[in-house]
Amino acid sequence: MHDVVLIGAGRIGRIHAANAAQHPRLRLAGIVDPVPEAAAALAAEHGSRVTTLDAALADPAVAGVIIASSTDTHLDYSLRAAAAGKAVFCEKPVDQDLARAQAAAPTLADARVLIGFNRRFDPNFRALKARLDAGAVGKLESLQITSNDPSPPPPSYVAVSGGLYRDMAIHDFDMARWLLGGEEIVSVYAIGSCLVDPEIGRLGDVDTARTVLTTVSGRLCVISNSRRSGFGYDQRIEAYGSAGMLRADNVLESTAQLWNENGAANDRFRNFFLDRYADAYRAEMDHFADVLDGAAPEISFADGVAALALADTAARVGDLLR
Amino acid sequence: MHDVVLIGAGRIGRIHAANAAQHPRLRLAGIVDPVPEAAAALAAEHGSRVTTLDAALADPAVAGVIIASSTDTHLDYSLRAAAAGKAVFCEKPVDQDLARAQAAAPTLADARVLIGFNRRFDPNFRALKARLDAGAVGKLESLQITSNDPSPPPPSYVAVSGGLYRDMAIHDFDMARWLLGGEEIVSVYAIGSCLVDPEIGRLGDVDTARTVLTTVSGRLCVISNSRRSGFGYDQRIEAYGSAGMLRADNVLESTAQLWNENGAANDRFRNFFLDRYADAYRAEMDHFADVLDGAAPEISFADGVAALALADTAARVGDLLR
Amino acid sequence: MHDVVLIGAGRIGRIHAANAAQHPRLRLAGIVDPVPEAAAALAAEHGSRVTTLDAALADPAVAGVIIASSTDTHLDYSLRAAAAGKAVFCEKPVDQDLARAQAAAPTLADARVLIGFNRRFDPNFRALKARLDAGAVGKLESLQITSNDPSPPPPSYVAVSGGLYRDMAIHDFDMARWLLGGEEIVSVYAIGSCLVDPEIGRLGDVDTARTVLTTVSGRLCVISNSRRSGFGYDQRIEAYGSAGMLRADNVLESTAQLWNENGAANDRFRNFFLDRYADAYRAEMDHFADVLDGAAPEISFADGVAALALADTAARVGDLLR
Amino acid sequence: MHDVVLIGAGRIGRIHAANAAQHPRLRLAGIVDPVPEAAAALAAEHGSRVTTLDAALADPAVAGVIIASSTDTHLDYSLRAAAAGKAVFCEKPVDQDLARAQAAAPTLADARVLIGFNRRFDPNFRALKARLDAGAVGKLESLQITSNDPSPPPPSYVAVSGGLYRDMAIHDFDMARWLLGGEEIVSVYAIGSCLVDPEIGRLGDVDTARTVLTTVSGRLCVISNSRRSGFGYDQRIEAYGSAGMLRADNVLESTAQLWNENGAANDRFRNFFLDRYADAYRAEMDHFADVLDGAAPEISFADGVAALALADTAARVGDLLR
Repeated sequence: MHDVVLIGAGRIGRIHAANAAQHPRLRLAGIVDPVPEAAAALAAEHGSRVTTLDAALADPAVAGVIIASSTDTHLDYSLRAAAAGKAVFCEKPVDQDLARAQAAAPTLADARVLIGFNRRFDPNFRALKARLDAGAVGKLESLQITSNDPSPPPPSYVAVSGGLYRDMAIHDFDMARWLLGGEEIVSVYAIGSCLVDPEIGRLGDVDTARTVLTTVSGRLCVISNSRRSGFGYDQRIEAYGSAGMLRADNVLESTAQLWNENGAANDRFRNFFLDRYADAYRAEMDHFADVLDGAAPEISFADGVAALALADTAARVGDLLR
Repeated sequence: MHDVVLIGAGRIGRIHAANAAQHPRLRLAGIVDPVPEAAAALAAEHGSRVTTLDAALADPAVAGVIIASSTDTHLDYSLRAAAAGKAVFCEKPVDQDLARAQAAAPTLADARVLIGFNRRFDPNFRALKARLDAGAVGKLESLQITSNDPSPPPPSYVAVSGGLYRDMAIHDFDMARWLLGGEEIVSVYAIGSCLVDPEIGRLGDVDTARTVLTTVSGRLCVISNSRRSGFGYDQRIEAYGSAGMLRADNVLESTAQLWNENGAANDRFRNFFLDRYADAYRAEMDHFADVLDGAAPEISFADGVAALALADTAARVGDLLR
Repeated sequence: MHDVVLIGAGRIGRIHAANAAQHPRLRLAGIVDPVPEAAAALAAEHGSRVTTLDAALADPAVAGVIIASSTDTHLDYSLRAAAAGKAVFCEKPVDQDLARAQAAAPTLADARVLIGFNRRFDPNFRALKARLDAGAVGKLESLQITSNDPSPPPPSYVAVSGGLYRDMAIHDFDMARWLLGGEEIVSVYAIGSCLVDPEIGRLGDVDTARTVLTTVSGRLCVISNSRRSGFGYDQRIEAYGSAGMLRADNVLESTAQLWNENGAANDRFRNFFLDRYADAYRAEMDHFADVLDGAAPEISFADGVAALALADTAARVGDLLR
Repeated sequence: MHDVVLIGAGRIGRIHAANAAQHPRLRLAGIVDPVPEAAAALAAEHGSRVTTLDAALADPAVAGVIIASSTDTHLDYSLRAAAAGKAVFCEKPVDQDLARAQAAAPTLADARVLIGFNRRFDPNFRALKARLDAGAVGKLESLQITSNDPSPPPPSYVAVSGGLYRDMAIHDFDMARWLLGGEEIVSVYAIGSCLVDPEIGRLGDVDTARTVLTTVSGRLCVISNSRRSGFGYDQRIEAYGSAGMLRADNVLESTAQLWNENGAANDRFRNFFLDRYADAYRAEMDHFADVLDGAAPEISFADGVAALALADTAARVGDLLR
């Protein structure tokens, strides 16, 4: 049983709180949030208590810190928690500033830091990865990663998000690195448009983008992003190998189908990350429990920096080509 | 090149005429129909000519006769054509009267007669059968045959059809016999309802039925029929074996899909036999060309009688249980 | 927060224990089992304690009793718990003896008893039912319920199971009643074979069966059962209405697909009830929490008796026809 | 009835010959080929005769010319046939040299020339296009066109093919233009690798490529190509709009499925263009009959030049980035 403290009682923090509270090897020992009411409400919900970061880091009983606070705090809190000897589970991105993140990398290289790229824990993508690693389609040659949100975020979110590449596509850059086995990426092409919401364009961002990565051995990866699919959370991967193709499809709300004069219709797709990735969030927390038991984090701080570096490059290329 | 003559210029006759006319080894040498205008129009369409059954049977150049006339003529025309030494391709059913059909069986046992159970030539069901025979699911144990029309026929058709079992389910009895490899059927249960159109009930028929067949070794087959699916032609088979299940599904009009807020919708199913079984009718005519070349008919007169006998039994059981 | 006590620490009991322990409105206050070690181990796992049925029924703090003990105790324990004023969540079947169950029905008619037909809580079947009730396919006309286990149970289980109809098909009888809206069933046909394991036949049971139910208005329901599918847990429903068909399909382990020279293969189906119905068991426990809050049980003791009555009839018909 | 003459008795010529010969409004009046035996054999097969281009163009009875000869002859034969007042059905590409094709464009602008981009006639892509035009997904925003061959061609073919972009992707450029409604394309990015067959690389070509097109309004189109899919002919389109997504999938050989312990497997995909696009070739010939009846060609010479121009640009960009 490991005591963990959660920093950040927002949307994603509440998911992690529930998963930590229900985990048989974790005890949710405290909640930290700048808004006392938010911390108190979440603590009450899970039989935990309100605390502060300082107190948590000073408490030798606390083994792990879950950082789900605002992005600008990720790096500092990770550094402080690691310095205090805690295991860290930090939400993506590691920071919005690549140089800062790179500067911290040596310090955190040996710390027990798990970066929360939840998709690596999705059972569908894990099944795809396991088969890929088992050679089900021979040698991997190219990837198609499709990642579209159901509907665009409010402009207020876009304004502070860091832009489509750093906020949204960063997940896909991590998936690309993961599936490519970390092979060096030698070129990045990105092109973006504002097709969904003109307000997003006015804020200097794009809402639709395509990124093409190439690796040193010539493997190709296309990432397709849109802030609005029109049909729920569109999260798919196709991995082409020398002996066929593996793919992981979207997840339906149920297996119910309606067959009528219009044809055969499936149910809706799961709408967004809270339901599509519910299992992934649970598995991610389970892996953090493993880290607390001594396992090496599957997603290191260096992985977080590498994904951010790709996002940064894509954003700059995309800006140049607009 | 074999000269063939078509008897019957109705809906199914026109399909056979087109397939015979386009077949590289057949020549559509004549059309016979009691309505001279119908025969003439069809003959003109395919560069053929109008003739009579007597003339066709007397003509030594005519190698085969395609009988697509009304059901009450099937048996007599088959007997006459066979007696004249012609190969016969006769539409189902062989007759509506089982005793008459059984009486003719010895005479036609050695004749070259092909009965037009078109579904045996459907590429989907053939693919299922080929895998079944190849042992893809081990030993066959049970069957689910689903066969629903898109919408009910007019009452005038129902009145002369011979009833759901003899008119519609007879196809499924033949499929059951084919897939069961001709194993003896030792029990027939049938139950029917009138749920679709009360007029069908007033005519003494049912529009919805379930039939359960059992074979001597205990294998089970369920046949599900309805005169109205509400979603096009519903023609499916599930074959359960000792090592899994084979199935053949409905055929879509195209692979186009629409993904929107209601979910993921396929295109419509093909609506009825003319489009669903277009390939089957072509393959069936191709097999008749093979018969004219000397091959044994895949579906003999005895098969036609056996399917009729099952339909007859099911109809009587169904009547008893109403 | 309601205190509940679990009777029976076997396979299904352990599932209910975990769901009760994790439920925000339930407290797993005790575990009862004739094998003290089993009770103790399960209690330890969930921070509960070992108790006895007498003690639990005498404890005014205990609001509900979950009966997951052997079938022969279901009825007695239900009666005793109800008499003690407890809400009861009792696994199926209510008893193996229909007469005994019917005799108890008046006594339990007004008690708060929830019978554990888990499939009614499966999200896929619930989605189907919700659409059916919303009129998505018009008026329901017929049902196809397919329910095949992945592989046969050991003969020792078969010997005490009550037979395929009472042990396995009883779930399907309940589903049929649920989907038919409780319309009176006026005929039951059943036919069974021993095709999977001769040992099952030697024990007087069948391993493959088809049951056909008809309702007073003529609606038809086919239930297909086998003790071995060869491809995992096969749990499907097709509901035909006047305006189309609704169906709920099997659940895949993941959305991963392999496309290679053999075609396009999906992942495996979930293998058996523990994983296929994991969500259903959670939802069922959630409903029991609602019952403890005052809601009427969705599945009453009378429903349990009605399903048993159908199973009993089917078993007797099946025996007659063998 | 229109007399047409076929130039070129190779693989694609034989398809056009069969479709013209079976078309009710066309008469295959002659076959031209530099290899007399090839012309004679094909003529015999369809009851046609061997002729020469000069004779065909001089014959006032010949209404149309089908050009299926080697690529280097396409442009000259088209110009000569058009000058002789014949309707022209010319295989893609219009030429391998863009400048030559552009130079001929004014001359052929008013001629009746149909370019054989067969995919526009595929029923699946037509269904997608029809729904797109009907507004089923609102305003089109982006496209994903996947087009992979089953296995790489022999090096001898690659050497004279003009390269992946001009030989293979040119179909996809035409599809992109068609689906984008001819909107001006303002940027072309292309990147290619040699991953499938090193011999292709030695010949200066690539076997795997991704092309990204952007239109003047910012719409994005990704084209994915590989010379080897490992699973048959991979021809898919996804069209994203403001209200959802339309897609057209690969075509299966049959609807037969195998469900066993490995999961649920579909049949194989149709393997290559001869079977996948059999319907498209028929529909294309039917449209040529319409052109002979007076209809405007759906795919003009200018369309052929525009697709070639995109292929040319992509090839040059791809070369720069290698």
